Amino acid sequence: MKLLRVGPAGAERPALLDESGVLRDLSAVVGDIDGELLGDGAALARVREAAGAGELPALDPAGLRIGPPVAGIGKVVCIGLNYHDHARETGGAVPEEPILFMKAPDTVVGAYDDVLVPRGSRKTDWEVELAVVIGRTARYLSSDEEASAAVAGYAVSNDVSERAFQLERGGQWDKGKNCETFNPLGPWLVTADEVPDPQALGLRLWVNGEPKQDGTTAEQIFPVLEVVRYLSQFMTLRPGDVVNTGTPAGVAMGAPEPKPYLRAGDVVELEIDGLGRQRQELRDA
Amino acid sequence: MKLLRVGPAGAERPALLDESGVLRDLSAVVGDIDGELLGDGAALARVREAAGAGELPALDPAGLRIGPPVAGIGKVVCIGLNYHDHARETGGAVPEEPILFMKAPDTVVGAYDDVLVPRGSRKTDWEVELAVVIGRTARYLSSDEEASAAVAGYAVSNDVSERAFQLERGGQWDKGKNCETFNPLGPWLVTADEVPDPQALGLRLWVNGEPKQDGTTAEQIFPVLEVVRYLSQFMTLRPGDVVNTGTPAGVAMGAPEPKPYLRAGDVVELEIDGLGRQRQELRDA
Repeated sequence: MKLLRVGPAGAERPALLDESGVLRDLSAVVGDIDGELLGDGAALARVREAAGAGELPALDPAGLRIGPPVAGIGKVVCIGLNYHDHARETGGAVPEEPILFMKAPDTVVGAYDDVLVPRGSRKTDWEVELAVVIGRTARYLSSDEEASAAVAGYAVSNDVSERAFQLERGGQWDKGKNCETFNPLGPWLVTADEVPDPQALGLRLWVNGEPKQDGTTAEQIFPVLEVVRYLSQFMTLRPGDVVNTGTPAGVAMGAPEPKPYLRAGDVVELEIDGLGRQRQELRDA
Repeated sequence: MKLLRVGPAGAERPALLDESGVLRDLSAVVGDIDGELLGDGAALARVREAAGAGELPALDPAGLRIGPPVAGIGKVVCIGLNYHDHARETGGAVPEEPILFMKAPDTVVGAYDDVLVPRGSRKTDWEVELAVVIGRTARYLSSDEEASAAVAGYAVSNDVSERAFQLERGGQWDKGKNCETFNPLGPWLVTADEVPDPQALGLRLWVNGEPKQDGTTAEQIFPVLEVVRYLSQFMTLRPGDVVNTGTPAGVAMGAPEPKPYLRAGDVVELEIDGLGRQRQELRDA
């Protein structure tokens, strides 16, 4: 299923994109698309049944905003340098174990919302990423099978980054990762049953129509299930948490000088096979 | 005012510790102690008025758990190496600007809850810290006055850290900062009007009764209001967000070998002038 949330920011309603591409209202079936729903197999089965029975009213998509596909996200955990080609372009060594950093949940916006270039920014960059949405509490998982059972689904994520804040302002990467609007997510959450192999997905990103990233999750150094298992040794993952699993080569930081960092007016588009497409316009904060 | 939340984990009720030290039930006045309340001057005035009028029923503290003093925390932002004496003991240079890292909100537990030593941990450490709780949305603040207006209050925080995970496992500090139960907060939130000078507070911590940390916020490299103003250049702070402002000297990592890292059965106690006292027993995860 493709689950999403539509409506004004802070007042989204749950919806489903059906197999014919028709947007359906889920308000009568579930309260919201959140960790509680994603952890509740019976509720998800009710959604699936209602969709199959053709009971869900259609929604007119015209003018309807698409919000983040998950409400009440508890944390956003990110993996750095997780693609062989991206590790090479940044000049970083291939990590021996996953590098993790954090984004605050309030950085998450909808797939078509504006992205704000922070004040004082000179190096706002893009990163198309496969996001994993957690569906079951995960502590000290010991196998890929347990990790797989903890995954509710997948979505497109743009792990927007300010490279000067991240790398030149002292300390930890988080400083360049938590600016307002820095994590467009969606447009929808695709449930895990519809993503048979998360290691065989093409990821692409364009800026102003020009191709910038064109990778595949086959290039991931640490595959999705290994990442989930690994993270669960260091923190408890909970339903509704999001894991950004890293970006392939092709970010602005990896380009020759002058590096094409983002400015107000630029348009970023990104997509992942089977997970849909995003489009953001950049604005000044 | 001293605001707190009492009851079983996940089912706490709002309460107030009055000037005589009597615990009072706030359930009839406010729904919870959260960002919404802290950002609502009228609601806080109602609490103050009800407390002053002696209208609030007393609660029997016997056997009553004290939870985290704020519900629905959006993010926990932490400042690293923010005390001259702690920067020296870790061998780190005095930072030129604040170092920030993140803890997920679900690391926050009550002041007397158990702290779990993560599986595989050899270097679980303590850090007594002054926590700032945000009461007003803060973006690109330009002065200490604006920062002051954004502060709802203060609390004691234990920024528990696993040093091997933080420093020896590749990448960013967050890996050793986000383990389950790693952020005892409270016992209460003291509103900012009762903390006339946040740069004149003694902080102390004991392990098994032995003094380990004995510092003062006068030693902070970046004072509280400067930290809040600085953070607001990189992220939006929102009501209910928490900022841990760094720890003074005396952590296990700074001790001579063999360093006295925490083990199951150890008891950590910590306090800050005017903000109350915490006590945690360590258990294996």
